[in-house]
Amino acid sequence: MTQAVTISVDAMGGDNAPDVVIEGLAQALAVDEALSVLLCGPEEVVAPFAAENARCEAVCTTEVIAMGEHPAKAVRSKKDSSIVRGCRLVREGAADGFFSAGSTGACLAAATLIMGRPRGVKRPALGVVLPAKERPVLLMDVGANADCKPEYLVQFARMGTIYMESILGVPDPSVGLLNIGEEDAKGSQFAQEAHGLLKAEIPQFAGNCEGGPLLQGAFDVVVTDGFTGNVCLKTIEGTFKVLFSAIKSALTSSITAKAGALLIKGKLAELKDEMDPDRLGGSPLLGVRGTCIVGHGSSNARAIKNGILAAASQVREGVSDKIAAAFSAEASPTASLEDADAVDGEA
Amino acid sequence: MTQAVTISVDAMGGDNAPDVVIEGLAQALAVDEALSVLLCGPEEVVAPFAAENARCEAVCTTEVIAMGEHPAKAVRSKKDSSIVRGCRLVREGAADGFFSAGSTGACLAAATLIMGRPRGVKRPALGVVLPAKERPVLLMDVGANADCKPEYLVQFARMGTIYMESILGVPDPSVGLLNIGEEDAKGSQFAQEAHGLLKAEIPQFAGNCEGGPLLQGAFDVVVTDGFTGNVCLKTIEGTFKVLFSAIKSALTSSITAKAGALLIKGKLAELKDEMDPDRLGGSPLLGVRGTCIVGHGSSNARAIKNGILAAASQVREGVSDKIAAAFSAEASPTASLEDADAVDGEA
Repeated sequence: MTQAVTISVDAMGGDNAPDVVIEGLAQALAVDEALSVLLCGPEEVVAPFAAENARCEAVCTTEVIAMGEHPAKAVRSKKDSSIVRGCRLVREGAADGFFSAGSTGACLAAATLIMGRPRGVKRPALGVVLPAKERPVLLMDVGANADCKPEYLVQFARMGTIYMESILGVPDPSVGLLNIGEEDAKGSQFAQEAHGLLKAEIPQFAGNCEGGPLLQGAFDVVVTDGFTGNVCLKTIEGTFKVLFSAIKSALTSSITAKAGALLIKGKLAELKDEMDPDRLGGSPLLGVRGTCIVGHGSSNARAIKNGILAAASQVREGVSDKIAAAFSAEASPTASLEDADAVDGEA
Repeated sequence: MTQAVTISVDAMGGDNAPDVVIEGLAQALAVDEALSVLLCGPEEVVAPFAAENARCEAVCTTEVIAMGEHPAKAVRSKKDSSIVRGCRLVREGAADGFFSAGSTGACLAAATLIMGRPRGVKRPALGVVLPAKERPVLLMDVGANADCKPEYLVQFARMGTIYMESILGVPDPSVGLLNIGEEDAKGSQFAQEAHGLLKAEIPQFAGNCEGGPLLQGAFDVVVTDGFTGNVCLKTIEGTFKVLFSAIKSALTSSITAKAGALLIKGKLAELKDEMDPDRLGGSPLLGVRGTCIVGHGSSNARAIKNGILAAASQVREGVSDKIAAAFSAEASPTASLEDADAVDGEA
């Protein structure tokens, strides 16, 4: 029997909220019968849906954190926002995990401040599973920490391998460092230091990964600081977008091309779908006490559905408990000194 | 009448050297009748070609710098390599510019050490013109300086705008800062400092540019440190590669798709060509005394031809003189204190 799981969901998250959130949530509930949801948002949005769905409970909130707001400030001042309440439900044990397609920065800040970090984790990091050629690759950090110390990347590697083992069933995931050359001594001062630490501390560390080979899938986990990771992720998304739009206009530019386009339409749609980040539904924030998945602001209903299901699966696989267990061994009292500084939320 | 220009060319640069270099060079000489070339390489390679081409002179060298060698060390020890000799010809005034598709790091180190920097330029930077959607965009630095100070980016912006004005005829080019959010206060400490300096010192500075919009062409010049720029550039190249190869396999996966593929083959080839970095032929190293263009290691004959022609056009437009003139006003004696440290060559 599938393990019963409760996820708190931000009804107001994303460019097309609340409509697509409600739609995606309905789809997730239909697919996963052991899933219950605490739906956070304004009463007029959440109450009607909850009234008609036995496995959904309404959590009425009075505030909304908008996309442009300063993450940490918004989280501190808007205690009754759907994001803050959603994270609080996890902290209080009412929910096992949280999903939002709202402001990434606010979600990171709320999850870090409210759920907190397991002992030993210096910085939570945002991961994203990229549809690489040979096999998927987890890139992290993609935006939780714009400024990193080299030792954070060692922790990202440990959290990332636990995720890939648990969620994608990858045995003994290999780890790469995003860098500007394959040779060990390449890169910035930061990259060189990170390389040394990864080599010393991560048995599965397999060397540097350049921007080109990233999508070839030569590594299971690729670690980097949140600035480079975010630029890299958005560059990939932007390149796909430009290329698919160029293909579309090329295919409608002549009668012959249009005829050909009709014949390959299905295949191109399949391909676009494979490459579509919505298929995966969101990015896990690893290194907080609980599950937190942040969806793309432009999420459609399918992405919302997949994000909520991903949160449920992360709970069932016990990813955050595994991370907590792995880090408890190395926890030291000094870690807490850094607490005040642990919220960047710049994504 | 077209201005006569002499370019020194590294016959041994690139994965397919010397054959494609010779082939591309022959094409460039055929297209540009005011072009002369000093071809640097082993006698058996350069002498036969020079013997048959009135506008090509052989410069026989005895050493070759391989792709994997440590750039600065190789440049210091291999004085009779084609890269070192090619740069020296520019310094001595025998050539107006240098082209190589060899080790980027070695070319950067050689050009910086041998040609030197104009007064006031703190670091030369490598630019690349990307085929963005609306109009081309110059991204720099893409790898000359893995570690940057925020003030370097202000200089990259000034050099980049001169290049775009002179070579692509862009009037008053707009400048963006590669960053992880549009808002002014976003990004790492480094990005925030660079943002403040750019805002204060560059009149055409138009704000932050995220990885996604980069290829939309909303900016004419986008500046970043050489680490992020290199990751970004290689990620774009890698994404194109994966996507075109995925399209290719999708189009051969069924009989219907194959029939459609036949009809759109021409259009796809055109598109691939538009997106092809070889069309542009190489990356200018701006901020050295002279012209230096570095081609992709995988350059084909066409890329070589275009790279040599690009070097000639940069000489004719007087780009490096314009940069020297723009910086001479702000030159200070302290700049020379940094000389010893100015060669990263990590690309």
